[in-house]
Formats: sequence, C-alpha cells, structure tokens
Amino acid sequence: MSALPRSLPDAHPSATLAEFASTLQFDDIPAAVVRRAEDLLLDTLGSILAGAGSRAVQTIGRYASTMGPAQGPAEVLIDRRGTTPLFAAMVNAAAAHVVEQDDVHNGSVFHPAAVVFPPALAVAQALGASGRDLLTASVAGYEVGIRAGEYLGRSHYKIFHTTGTVGTLAAAVTVGRLLGLDPARMLHALGSAGTQAAGLWEFLRDAADSKQLHTAKAAADGLTAAYLAQDGFTGAQRILEGKQGMAAGMSTDADPSRLTDRLGERWALAETSFKFHASCRHTHPAADALLALMRDHGLKADDLAEVDAQVHQGAIDVLGPVVNPTTVHQSKFSMGTVLALIAREGRAGLAEFDAALHDAEVARLRERVRMSFDAEVDEAYPQRWIGKVSVRTTDGRILSARVDEPKGDPGNTLSRGEIEDKAMRLGTYAGAATEAEMRALIDQVWRLAELPRVGRLLPT
Amino acid sequence: MSALPRSLPDAHPSATLAEFASTLQFDDIPAAVVRRAEDLLLDTLGSILAGAGSRAVQTIGRYASTMGPAQGPAEVLIDRRGTTPLFAAMVNAAAAHVVEQDDVHNGSVFHPAAVVFPPALAVAQALGASGRDLLTASVAGYEVGIRAGEYLGRSHYKIFHTTGTVGTLAAAVTVGRLLGLDPARMLHALGSAGTQAAGLWEFLRDAADSKQLHTAKAAADGLTAAYLAQDGFTGAQRILEGKQGMAAGMSTDADPSRLTDRLGERWALAETSFKFHASCRHTHPAADALLALMRDHGLKADDLAEVDAQVHQGAIDVLGPVVNPTTVHQSKFSMGTVLALIAREGRAGLAEFDAALHDAEVARLRERVRMSFDAEVDEAYPQRWIGKVSVRTTDGRILSARVDEPKGDPGNTLSRGEIEDKAMRLGTYAGAATEAEMRALIDQVWRLAELPRVGRLLPT
Repeated sequence: MSALPRSLPDAHPSATLAEFASTLQFDDIPAAVVRRAEDLLLDTLGSILAGAGSRAVQTIGRYASTMGPAQGPAEVLIDRRGTTPLFAAMVNAAAAHVVEQDDVHNGSVFHPAAVVFPPALAVAQALGASGRDLLTASVAGYEVGIRAGEYLGRSHYKIFHTTGTVGTLAAAVTVGRLLGLDPARMLHALGSAGTQAAGLWEFLRDAADSKQLHTAKAAADGLTAAYLAQDGFTGAQRILEGKQGMAAGMSTDADPSRLTDRLGERWALAETSFKFHASCRHTHPAADALLALMRDHGLKADDLAEVDAQVHQGAIDVLGPVVNPTTVHQSKFSMGTVLALIAREGRAGLAEFDAALHDAEVARLRERVRMSFDAEVDEAYPQRWIGKVSVRTTDGRILSARVDEPKGDPGNTLSRGEIEDKAMRLGTYAGAATEAEMRALIDQVWRLAELPRVGRLLPT
Repeated sequence: MSALPRSLPDAHPSATLAEFASTLQFDDIPAAVVRRAEDLLLDTLGSILAGAGSRAVQTIGRYASTMGPAQGPAEVLIDRRGTTPLFAAMVNAAAAHVVEQDDVHNGSVFHPAAVVFPPALAVAQALGASGRDLLTASVAGYEVGIRAGEYLGRSHYKIFHTTGTVGTLAAAVTVGRLLGLDPARMLHALGSAGTQAAGLWEFLRDAADSKQLHTAKAAADGLTAAYLAQDGFTGAQRILEGKQGMAAGMSTDADPSRLTDRLGERWALAETSFKFHASCRHTHPAADALLALMRDHGLKADDLAEVDAQVHQGAIDVLGPVVNPTTVHQSKFSMGTVLALIAREGRAGLAEFDAALHDAEVARLRERVRMSFDAEVDEAYPQRWIGKVSVRTTDGRILSARVDEPKGDPGNTLSRGEIEDKAMRLGTYAGAATEAEMRALIDQVWRLAELPRVGRLLPT
C-alpha cells in the first residue's frame, strides 16, 4: 500500500465521496438507518429468490457456471451453488430486479438494493466479514450511489438505465468498504467503476432481457473495480465530474451540489421505498385506499357493487389502455385486476397475479372498477402519491377512503412483520426456498448486526 | 433455437451488420485480406507477450486467477495458465494494448486487434475451432467494429475511448461468429454488447491504468454478450441507431451511412496500420525518412552533425515540449531520442528505448536533432503523414530524404519478414517467450488457415 498516498490531495466531489465511503464506521450510522438496511437486505433476498424461475436469470446463471469456478465461498442463492464472489454477485444481482419487487429511490430513479446487496453478500461470505461490516458497506454503497444518480439527473435517465450505470459505482463502493480500501484506493475504485458504467434503455422497445444484464454487470463490474483497486490498479480521480468523465459523457443537467449533499447527516438509504404490491406503482395508492376502506368497514369482495379509483392523469395514461389483460405482466397494469385482488385476497402479490389471469371471479370484480381523474391527487403528484377510492356497496352505501402516502414510501413504510411476510411470499414464490428455510434466513438477517462472520444463508 | 426467428424482420443497420457477421464465410474473404488478418494476429500475439511485464496487466491477471477457474482450455499467454475463455480473453486483451504496438484504424480511431484477437483465440481454443473459423470470425469483428467506430464519429471519441466502447461490439461479433450464431442471435449479441459498452478518457488526466481495463472489459463483455445470445438471451434490436441506443447516448455526429458502408466489398481490416517504431506516431514519418537517407547514403550515426526533421504543426505541439526526457515513456515522445536510435540502432523498438534513457551517446545524438515546421507536410496532414528530413554530415554534405507514407500504413505496410522480426522482438521483450517458442508460434500463425483445430500457442 506504500506506493499510494494515504490522504487525498484535495477535496473534489469524487474524492469526498471516496473518503466518506472509506472511513464510514458502523457506529456513525443511526440505529434506525441500520434497521432499515436490514429491512432492505431481507427484502432483496426475497426478490432474488423470487427471480429464480426467470429465463433471463437462469441464462446468466448458466453462463456463470460455464465461465466461473464450480466451487467457492460465495452463494448463488437461486441454485445454492458456491463460487467466487464475482459470479455470485453477478447471478444474484440479475435475479434481484426481475420480479420488480426491489426498492426504489424516487429522487435518483435508482434501484440500489439490486446492485448493492448481491456484491455485499458475496464478498462478505468470501472474506468471512462480520454482519456489521456488511451493513456498513451497504450503507456506503447506498449513500454514494443515490447521490451519483441525483447528480447525473433526468437527462441521464432519458437514455441510460441509472441502476446499471450508477449501480457500478454503488457496487464498487460497497465492495471497496468490505475490502477495507483506504480513501486513495477507494477513489481509484470509483474511477475504475465509472469508466465501466453502462446500460442503455434501448432494450425496452423490444422487451429484451437487458435489465437483468444491467444489474448483473453493475454488481460484477463494481466488484471488479474494487478488487483491482485493492491490488494497486489506478483509476481516474474525477470520474464523475471530470471533463471527460461520466457527467461530461452521459448527462446535460448534472448538478454537482447533489454529489456530496449532507454526507453523513442525510441518510439517503432511509429515503428509499419498498414495493408492497407486485403491480405497477401507479396502482398502489388506490390499492392502499381500498384496503383501508374494506378493513374499516368490514367489507368482503362480494359487498362491492362499484369501485371508483380517483387518480392522477399519469395513472390514466399508463393504466387506461389495459382493459382486458391477456398476460400476467399486463394484469399488473390493470387497475381492475389489482383492486379485484385487493378486495378478494387482501393483497396483490406475485402468486395472486399468477392465479388471477384466468379467474372468472377476478374478471367479474374487475368489471366493477373504474378510474376517474382527481384534481387534488393530480396536483400533489409526483411529490406525493395520494390514494383515493369511492365504493358503492351492494346494500347501497357510498363509502370512501384515502391514504396520503402509499404503502412502502418512507412516511408509510412496512413494519417488520409486513417485511417478513413479503419476504416469505417472495422467497417461496418460485420454490427457491421452503418456508422453514425462509424462517431461518429471516432470523439470520435480524441477527446480522451481531454476527461475527457472515456465512451461507441457505442450506446446501 | 426454435423460439427465435431465423430471418430478421427488416434490414435496419444493426440487423444488416448482424446478418453480415453471421453469414460471412472464409471463402468470401479475399486472400489478401486473410493474409493481412494473419499478419495482424501475429502482430497482436507479439504485443500481448510484450505486455507481460506491465503492472496493470499483471494486476488484471491476478484478478482473473482470484475469480476464475484455475484450469481450462483457453490460454493466458502472459503466464501460460489455462482457464475459461472469459478470463483468457480478459487478460490477453489487457496485455495487447499496453506497449502501444498494436494496430490502429485511422478513420475510426479504433484499435481493433487488441479486442478482436484475444477473444477469438480464447474461444477458438475452447471450442476446438479451425484456423479458418478463427480468421473468419476475426474479420467479421474488424468489419463491424471499424464501421461502428466510424459511425459514432469524432464527438464520441472526445469523451469515450472508442476501443473500449466499440471494442465490445467487435468482440461480441467475433465470438458470435465462432459460436455460429444465426443472424437473429447475432443481433441479440450486438444488443447485449452495446448496452455494456463503456470507457471514458478521464483517466488520461491522471495517467491511470484504465486503458488496460477498457480493452480487457471490451473483450470480456463482448464475449459475454455472445455466449448469452447463444443461450437465448435477448438484446435490443437497434442498439447502435435506436432512440435510446449508443449514438443517442454517446455521440452527436453519428453518420448512419458509415455503419454498413460497402459491407462485403470494402475490407476495413486491410485499412489498418501497423505500428513499426515503439514511439509516438508523430515521430514515425521523420524516422522512416532518416532511415531511408542513412541507407541510401551509407551513413553511420557518427556521420551526422545535424538533423532537421521537417514536420507538421501537430508534431511540434506534442513533441516540442520534450527536450530532456526523464522516463522511458517520455523518451518515446522525444524526436531527438527517436532519431538517435534510428541513426545508431537502425530501429526504435521497446528494447532500444529501455536501454537509451541513460545512454550518453544517445543524449549526444539527441542534441543534434531539431524540428522545423514544413508547410507541405502540414497541409497534407492528417490524410497523409509525409516524412521529411535534412541532414548535415560531419564531412559537410547536406542531404535530404522523404517518405510519403510512414512505415506500417496500408500503402507502406510491413513485409512478412518485418512482421516476424517485430513479433520476435516483442515476444521476447519481457521474457514471456523464448526465441524458439516465438519461431514455433510464428510458424503456427502462418499455417493457421490449414489448421483443423486451434490449440495452445505456447508450451506449458
């Protein structure tokens, strides 16, 4: 380590981020943020296991088997193989995002969990790091990644998949912290990560598999950057803000003040939202309002004669065209289907959607749902996602309900019980884990901060 | 293969490139182009071996050992380990570009050899492909990569390292052809490659190691894209020209007509230049002119009292500041050192530069060299790189010479003897191969088109 300076020559934003990530200590992080990181980790593990059945994920898994070692200390959760951290991170990250149940940070339009936790877990397992180290490293990855996403801004997101590009930085920081990189080496890791950052939205037009490649590669490339930096490999010092850096090449509205915004005081990790329902986010406010209404009035699905979801224009634009969904994916964009499931099942999760597609009763309930434009809801959007529904019951009552923040947003977050419940359903959804295995995994995550050494999460 | 269409829906440029690459046959390629591909392959193998001593390359090699399998059919040339093609391609590509002796295509400012031949060799070894398959695949990679570089244009090159970005496409096409991808799957491979394409020039400011990471990752990521496509993984159909594709995100002057320019008629591979001297390209025309002058007049170094290199303004801008070079790298940008080596050694190769730094006679000769602006040379640049020198001999004669195209450019290319000589010097430079091993390797390359099965190039 002697060849590189221990202290950084100056405090440009990339260097400030590197120093923050390198020196962050577990005890610096507020307890509530640590708890939240545990929540997000468990939520991500559920998402990974739920992605086990995806063709795209399995393809990346087979590629990892073809090119990577057949054994190693890092766990590929979808098939429980052990391999090197590179390949475990790659496959788990591919799986984490595919069922679209992982977290989102609204301001950066970035999904941190999918690219932070897979490399964190893989490297922690390989190093035998403590649970606190894993959590500290993950928080560092969130804080740097979210700020980089905010910095690159909306112009970046128009063409580039922020979770792929910024995800590479977040993964590098996470792994770099686990490897104990000093600030100078952490800055080299950022440089090597940023110069690998990639991911274009063009695949959306063809519904191609690239989204899974983007999370897989962000995790893998960030990990590569950190391991190389540990071994003395150098990178650009100003990869974010330099004249030929990320913003210069991939953004026209980069705001440098966002890069280091209240580092160590503002905890961006706590601003992320959980996805509670397995449907398009535009359906969530109305779903939550209907759930509240039915609970408050003790209603059953059969009691509903008519449901009016009062929504913002964006919801009408996106969901309006979906009248008779013909695929499971489409049904997640059908307000009628979502509210039918809420009414009958009390939830709209992955399993409920799979079962609903050809269910005649769901179809009947769907017919009773309509959307109407609501000026208050529309005006508040997108700062606040207000949910409002009105219901006419079969016995002629007119009832209404509202929620001011959809379930899963920071002001209306999930309880530990709800997070466990979601993780249990996701983990068992594709048969990748049993209920007993999920129970043990949940216990492990809740005890993580006391764990001296992170080991396997699932039995072989 | 049944899930994907065999024929492409339409002929947008990306699809045309994919179809060309997928269907190119050995017999379609003119014999002179095949010979040239063999020349370039040998030249690249020399460059890879010469890079064996580089710290950055060795770091990537250690990373490959840490994360990849300890055995496999693909040969890491710098240390002769066998591993999977992913890691062999990665390390060999890292090594190929580091001594800056690999080829360049002027119009696309792209170094194809470094990102085409390492994955070609690794995958051919893994598959037991024939020499003709390796050559055909490499030609496909050159043709697609060079056109993509021309398409993305100068605006792209200002921020992005074209050899990294476009190199990912070239590597994907090369590997895709070896894997026998049909046009539809080749197009998916292009999509998955383009969405991974990365590489920023920001590292130059810090003289960081990223250049080696860029070639390593281009080769590795392109290979990944092709293997995934073989297994049914889908990618964007218009990754180059789409509304959220590479040009949309990374170029402002993309010229679509370049993408498919005379495919199958114009052979862009034959337009590449070999680097003959191991110095900055701006020194090459004058070096060639001095070499010709000394040969024609039977001069020795001691006969030179004064040397005037008549150059274009760009050469004065870049080389002018280098008066007393203090590092080997800097001496390659010193016109005085280059011409001193030409005068005394008849060449300016890697070994000559290493030995010259503290050589008093080289320093004395260097003092006798000056540069002067020449209007004719300047006007012809950059279309033509004319070399002109005037010499005053110790016995008072004034002599002059010129070359109209520097050695290595397509119109003044290297003979097979010169290519062998360069490869021999590069291959043995860092001790990565013996002369006898290089002799056998050279023979193998010249017999490649008759080889039914590509095996190891060096003994274990």
